[in-house]
Amino acid sequence: MSDKIFVFGHQNPDTDAIGSSMSYAYLRKNVAFGALNTEVVALGEVNEETAFALKTFGLEAPRVVKSAKEEGVDTVILTDHNEFQQSISDIEEVTIFGVVDHHRVDNFHTAVPLFMDVQPVGSASSIVYRQYLANGVEIPTAIAGMMLSGLISDTLLLKSPTTHPTDFKVAEDLAKIAGVDLEEYGLAMLKAGTNLSTKTAEELIDIDAKTFEFSGSKARIAQVNTVDIPEVLERLTEIKSAMTAYMTAGGFDDFIFMITDIVNSNSEIIELGSHPEKVEKAFNFSLKDDHAFLAGAVSRKKQVVPQLTESFEA
Amino acid sequence: MSDKIFVFGHQNPDTDAIGSSMSYAYLRKNVAFGALNTEVVALGEVNEETAFALKTFGLEAPRVVKSAKEEGVDTVILTDHNEFQQSISDIEEVTIFGVVDHHRVDNFHTAVPLFMDVQPVGSASSIVYRQYLANGVEIPTAIAGMMLSGLISDTLLLKSPTTHPTDFKVAEDLAKIAGVDLEEYGLAMLKAGTNLSTKTAEELIDIDAKTFEFSGSKARIAQVNTVDIPEVLERLTEIKSAMTAYMTAGGFDDFIFMITDIVNSNSEIIELGSHPEKVEKAFNFSLKDDHAFLAGAVSRKKQVVPQLTESFEA
Repeated sequence: MSDKIFVFGHQNPDTDAIGSSMSYAYLRKNVAFGALNTEVVALGEVNEETAFALKTFGLEAPRVVKSAKEEGVDTVILTDHNEFQQSISDIEEVTIFGVVDHHRVDNFHTAVPLFMDVQPVGSASSIVYRQYLANGVEIPTAIAGMMLSGLISDTLLLKSPTTHPTDFKVAEDLAKIAGVDLEEYGLAMLKAGTNLSTKTAEELIDIDAKTFEFSGSKARIAQVNTVDIPEVLERLTEIKSAMTAYMTAGGFDDFIFMITDIVNSNSEIIELGSHPEKVEKAFNFSLKDDHAFLAGAVSRKKQVVPQLTESFEA
Repeated sequence: MSDKIFVFGHQNPDTDAIGSSMSYAYLRKNVAFGALNTEVVALGEVNEETAFALKTFGLEAPRVVKSAKEEGVDTVILTDHNEFQQSISDIEEVTIFGVVDHHRVDNFHTAVPLFMDVQPVGSASSIVYRQYLANGVEIPTAIAGMMLSGLISDTLLLKSPTTHPTDFKVAEDLAKIAGVDLEEYGLAMLKAGTNLSTKTAEELIDIDAKTFEFSGSKARIAQVNTVDIPEVLERLTEIKSAMTAYMTAGGFDDFIFMITDIVNSNSEIIELGSHPEKVEKAFNFSLKDDHAFLAGAVSRKKQVVPQLTESFEA
């Protein structure tokens, strides 16, 4: 095994997973004291939104790996996630050197002490940015651009309730370093991620999908961004077939699919599986033809997962 | 429920549990932005070493609580621990606002995002000290004294292998603010914790004891500091009786008792229970009359727990 340390975000990487891992790997390689031999990798291909960000700042996507050990690496740093089922396949067999994350902590444990910087802010990239300041490392333009993109993506341009009061200043600072106009670049990047017409239904339900456990039930929760919910709902039959096939193949009890209108900040929720009544109770709505409108909901983390957790536990 | 937030270290508090919780509660109450209504409490009475530190710096011990909910508090901050079995009795029912710790992360989870600052350094107090610097909060003399005491206690005056390269400077800084001579005060404080003659055997095995799970086995690991191992071993029969009674009452599979010579940095290990062969394999020694000498070992966290974890998993 080498002294190389893999740095990566979660499976089905979104822009914050890629942005935070690229920027954190660069930071740890370039600190004055205790520099590490880091390599940023990804646990999946980047989505179109992230591809837009990478292209804007002249960067290549990190290479995709499936296992650390197979690559001769036994030490890893996780960004934008901590739950093992969202991480690299051999996470139980490697040493976790550090974690930079902004999610709840669950299904996570280590054998030895580690670095863990978890903060309830809008993006993992916001935390990495603060670590650049704390360590006095100069931020290259492109790295600032990727951190900014991660923050914009996770907060839907600072509109999501997951946005932390400190995130506005972080976005302003990073846009300045990256040399872009925050609003203009942000909207262009988000729109690049809403081009759903070229995607198959199987791709749609996997663009940004994560696995959760609710009181012993296994649930998949996916989210897509759009500027036109009705356009997506025209493909309801096709999407439901894909969701059912995915549940059967993966042994899931439920599949919840969030179609989020990034302009008006609302979502349509599709639920398939064993617990429609738990989902109805969680959101206080009635499913018709397996779906319902959820006004004001844009954040899976803050407006969907905690509500489902409570409803399933009741 | 009030807006009060309890800040506390682990059960059977040692000097770092008390020092880190007192100093962190003060810090969060006194930051310029986002100040919290914190109250430091403790999950047990302080030991003699901690009492010496408190007396030196003119402070009272935090009041002891058994439950948060019973006190009308539903939000907590943990210092110097994260594992739920080492925490407050109703930890599963309250919101964990933050964690400041320097141990492995295990048996820990939250429903929502939180602040978590875990670093593999010599004491939780070392991390709190860095947070004072980061937040620009002035450190009162007595608070500096308690952070220094926590660091000295956990690292046996910077001699334990758990001492981080950055801890030497932290100790020097804190000694200056606290107005004490590091070596002189440190040795006096450690010696105050080695007065074992007035303790019953039941008290001895509970001064600094924690519960661990090794591959489904439940183990208790206790440690005492002394300047004279043979003096403690004179009470072997009595100590073994107390260990056996404790195991029976608590349903433990093993009880490992570390008697640590703080001057020469060695330990005697007593093992009672179902897995003496696992303990022998972990430390590559042979138990005679249920005990053996472990040269160079002073740290439960670094020189005992990982070795037992590996041996039990094999």
